[in-house]
Amino acid sequence: MVRKRRNKISYSTVRRLTLYLRELEGLLEEGQKTVSSRELAAAAGVKATQLRKDLSFFGSFGVRGRGYDAEDLADNIRRILGVNKEWPTVLVGAGSLGHALAGYKGFALHNIRFVGVLDSDPAKIGTTLAGLTIEPLERIWDYPKEKGGKIVVLAVPASAAQDVADMAIRAGYDGIINFAPVRLRVPPVVALYSVDLSMAFEHVTFELSTEN
Amino acid sequence: MVRKRRNKISYSTVRRLTLYLRELEGLLEEGQKTVSSRELAAAAGVKATQLRKDLSFFGSFGVRGRGYDAEDLADNIRRILGVNKEWPTVLVGAGSLGHALAGYKGFALHNIRFVGVLDSDPAKIGTTLAGLTIEPLERIWDYPKEKGGKIVVLAVPASAAQDVADMAIRAGYDGIINFAPVRLRVPPVVALYSVDLSMAFEHVTFELSTEN
Repeated sequence: MVRKRRNKISYSTVRRLTLYLRELEGLLEEGQKTVSSRELAAAAGVKATQLRKDLSFFGSFGVRGRGYDAEDLADNIRRILGVNKEWPTVLVGAGSLGHALAGYKGFALHNIRFVGVLDSDPAKIGTTLAGLTIEPLERIWDYPKEKGGKIVVLAVPASAAQDVADMAIRAGYDGIINFAPVRLRVPPVVALYSVDLSMAFEHVTFELSTEN
Repeated sequence: MVRKRRNKISYSTVRRLTLYLRELEGLLEEGQKTVSSRELAAAAGVKATQLRKDLSFFGSFGVRGRGYDAEDLADNIRRILGVNKEWPTVLVGAGSLGHALAGYKGFALHNIRFVGVLDSDPAKIGTTLAGLTIEPLERIWDYPKEKGGKIVVLAVPASAAQDVADMAIRAGYDGIINFAPVRLRVPPVVALYSVDLSMAFEHVTFELSTEN
């Protein structure tokens, strides 16, 4: 929801790139080898001129009459988004949301790999989640050094999220993905992305609303 | 992720409106009564001219030198997004993601109210989740008539999502919020919004990546 920006590429551009990538992955799965800018643009809900502008900015050019090579373009977008390599990620919070995230099939596809699961509840510590032993929250300090953990995912109650974010920043994580419904304050050097699940509803209620 | 459009307002505009609303809610909670277009625009990561254009399109105008009345503007945006009234919603899938969604504090704030929770697992049926008794999937047919359910939330495995979506459409739901990591095909009259949780990571990995 609120992202601190470290470079000049806008939030909207990144979002469009993620949508292009999802569409390309879907087409590749269905056996399609090439894709036109019109087709890819429609999937992301943008104009073909916008798509061509986005992609040319990153050095990808289609061939007139043939369009883009789907596999090449997907690889290129993965590289731009940084998901061409694995990101060791630490999950904080082993409640229902933590369980859902640990079991989410979409992550492995995009090179997101949980290397640790932490919780402050003594009843949970020592049990396993997605093949990992749940460890005490204090282990958050060790992962950046031990396993190169750079990203932390907060699946904690809203009341705890800022404290855990502060710990993570001091521990040396560069990226925070926050699922708690609360606004976090972080220094601009930290890449923060907050997921507000109720926003999905607003896209639908907007469409169903008779006011517009 | 992919939205079928029923009207001319773009996905991006709706998204900006949701961001303005979140920021306004945060400011109101902190006791702030008015807000400048510059401040609100910064929170959503857009230019102040873009914000003024968005809001004037919906009939909201700030006062020069004073900005916008935060409460009025929030009410106006809630009305545009349709979240000024309650949306009875049926949750399908009582696994870990279903549990997380049923317990998510951000929904009630935005007038999203689960009226039913369904699952196809006999072991879950009859148990309770968030104060509701889990019912068999077949009850999906009854809610639109009985309780005016218009929106269905899919928290089911990817392999089941299209079948459940097809049922929901035939049962008369107008809106589908899909959390399964799969592309659904629905007729254009249905408002579909798919949430891909791995997109949040891509915003962060993009920022942390040295390629850009």
